[in-house]
Amino acid sequence: MSSQSQPVPFTADDYRARMTRAADTAAEAGLAGVLVAPGPDLVYLTGYRPVNTERLTVLVLTPGQDPVLVVPTLEAPDAEKAVGAPALTLRDWTDGKDPYAVTAPLLDGHGRFGISDNAWAMHLLGLQRTLPDTSYVSLTEALPMLRAVKDAPELERIAAAGAAADATYGEILKVRFSGRKETDIAAELAGLLKRFGHSQVDFTVVGSGPNGANPHHEAGERTIERGDMVVLDFGGLKHGYGSDTSRTVHVGEPTAEEQRVHDIVREAQEAGCEAVRPGVACQEIDRAARAVITEFGYGERFIHRTGHGIGVTTHEPPYMIEGEEQPLVPGMCFSVEPGIYLPGRFGVRIEDIVTVTEAGGRRLNNTARELAIVE
Amino acid sequence: MSSQSQPVPFTADDYRARMTRAADTAAEAGLAGVLVAPGPDLVYLTGYRPVNTERLTVLVLTPGQDPVLVVPTLEAPDAEKAVGAPALTLRDWTDGKDPYAVTAPLLDGHGRFGISDNAWAMHLLGLQRTLPDTSYVSLTEALPMLRAVKDAPELERIAAAGAAADATYGEILKVRFSGRKETDIAAELAGLLKRFGHSQVDFTVVGSGPNGANPHHEAGERTIERGDMVVLDFGGLKHGYGSDTSRTVHVGEPTAEEQRVHDIVREAQEAGCEAVRPGVACQEIDRAARAVITEFGYGERFIHRTGHGIGVTTHEPPYMIEGEEQPLVPGMCFSVEPGIYLPGRFGVRIEDIVTVTEAGGRRLNNTARELAIVE
Repeated sequence: MSSQSQPVPFTADDYRARMTRAADTAAEAGLAGVLVAPGPDLVYLTGYRPVNTERLTVLVLTPGQDPVLVVPTLEAPDAEKAVGAPALTLRDWTDGKDPYAVTAPLLDGHGRFGISDNAWAMHLLGLQRTLPDTSYVSLTEALPMLRAVKDAPELERIAAAGAAADATYGEILKVRFSGRKETDIAAELAGLLKRFGHSQVDFTVVGSGPNGANPHHEAGERTIERGDMVVLDFGGLKHGYGSDTSRTVHVGEPTAEEQRVHDIVREAQEAGCEAVRPGVACQEIDRAARAVITEFGYGERFIHRTGHGIGVTTHEPPYMIEGEEQPLVPGMCFSVEPGIYLPGRFGVRIEDIVTVTEAGGRRLNNTARELAIVE
Repeated sequence: MSSQSQPVPFTADDYRARMTRAADTAAEAGLAGVLVAPGPDLVYLTGYRPVNTERLTVLVLTPGQDPVLVVPTLEAPDAEKAVGAPALTLRDWTDGKDPYAVTAPLLDGHGRFGISDNAWAMHLLGLQRTLPDTSYVSLTEALPMLRAVKDAPELERIAAAGAAADATYGEILKVRFSGRKETDIAAELAGLLKRFGHSQVDFTVVGSGPNGANPHHEAGERTIERGDMVVLDFGGLKHGYGSDTSRTVHVGEPTAEEQRVHDIVREAQEAGCEAVRPGVACQEIDRAARAVITEFGYGERFIHRTGHGIGVTTHEPPYMIEGEEQPLVPGMCFSVEPGIYLPGRFGVRIEDIVTVTEAGGRRLNNTARELAIVE
């Protein structure tokens, strides 16, 4: 990897701006504040990456007040090293003390608070008990756009992760599939993602033959044979931002039916991407892709949503799903990944990450979408 | 690893018995049922190991009724493969449907339910909103003993994990420390744990010199030097059960003060282990160890609890901490790990996993606790 591919590091000011924006957006949404648990929300807002455990760590954002990070005393030295630490105040609590009593004064005793989706239930219950006049709503519901609109340095990272995933696909087409186990191909995908700069591999789906008909199959002991369709779906994090792409390949020449099903999914994926432009509701992307598959009679075989957002995680809002009326905004990044799944036989899925620009959707995965023939 | 070290696999009947016991224990505690999220509770009760995500997966246990596992439709094929699946009924929900509406009929609309500590807050909020007449309490609070008392096949696994950690310590004493980075020693510890049969490494703390004074320091870029104290604390999972042991070593000859601090911690750790017997409250283990350190004037420098349970995770109830009145029961397994931390200088921690027997505590780590001198 050339040194020029290293992105410019985020600064404490970047994190300060994000925390301020989150608090302001919360106020506009009628919230008294935001409670952020360890995980992607905290990484996005502070750069701090503790493990989410039974020991309460929570960032409290309230409009017009400085951010406060409540941490276990013995984790305070790590928290102080976070890039965003200069933009917040630490308040630590020691084993044996009640962490909710330490947090309570920051919440002012009443009001409605957004809380990270993945906060532990035990911590939410502790706050509800300590502050019976407060109420809570999940951040995805209250502030679904919190992390959805990416700024330029974030887009740069997601594009780089996408390019690395594309390079991975280019290399995997060169390897032998027939006679090898799905797990062997999966291991090669993981190695390639790392070779192309990923620090973390989140998934390497290799669904051959009937395994491809289960969209959440990962990779198993099945030996891939000549004549198999093989769904490949892989991604992870590079420089802290996600990649996620799918292509379906065929070992040897496909049958007419296999080729036809692949063509339909390709047309559906194209329709989904074409529908992307600012102001269009997320559900319209799902509808555009689904309409093609339904038109060709496979509507019942497209058994998942069309896409999901991507950023500091590989799956996050916004979701491209019927009922999601959120309008698309320039800077959003998400997958468009329709599929057809024929139980006991095979599956096809094609997936690109797309970002919204004023001019429409721009794909961040750009490998060929035709059905590739592998050995 | 010899084949005889493979434990006998758990069966669907094992999981059925655990689920029945959990439901019965919940009823005795006045609960209407138990809601189990993906994670260690679900692994313990069913053997199923999905990722904990925004898509609701929850095991519902209600006394006198068959267990029901609510899962996303596209994860149902994986759930069906879990060893415990024959002991429960699957109920799936499809993307776009309200998973809380699918779960609600199982809860009968009212009553108090235990819920896994690590259930996502968004799922708890979804249930609270869908069923306003239900209330919730964290499983650790309501049923702290759910996973705490290990049966014989579990003890066999924890002992084997402990022996592997001991073998790791034996090997690490042979390597060179001085002139190498903490991360180098950490990588060796991880490699050794895997070599001795661990499938997962959870932590490899190497705290040299002043870094040892931060009990949650992991391993950094610091180069270890002659004259350093080095805290080693490592563990993970072998055959699905945890190891966790700490020893503090010295590079070259220690000073009189270093030796003295180490002697105090060793005496404190001995006192904690000696206090273990059925019926004694958990807090008494903490008090026994802390009393020694306080007596020697370092009470303010022992800044964490004395121990935590271990099982399908490396940190779980019961906790050896002031205020925990839970009596010890034969079959419980937990760490005894007092420490002294001198900011800016060095730290010392000594840790063994101990299991409660009718006769008292039995250590599952058995390497020498004297201050070892390394090169």
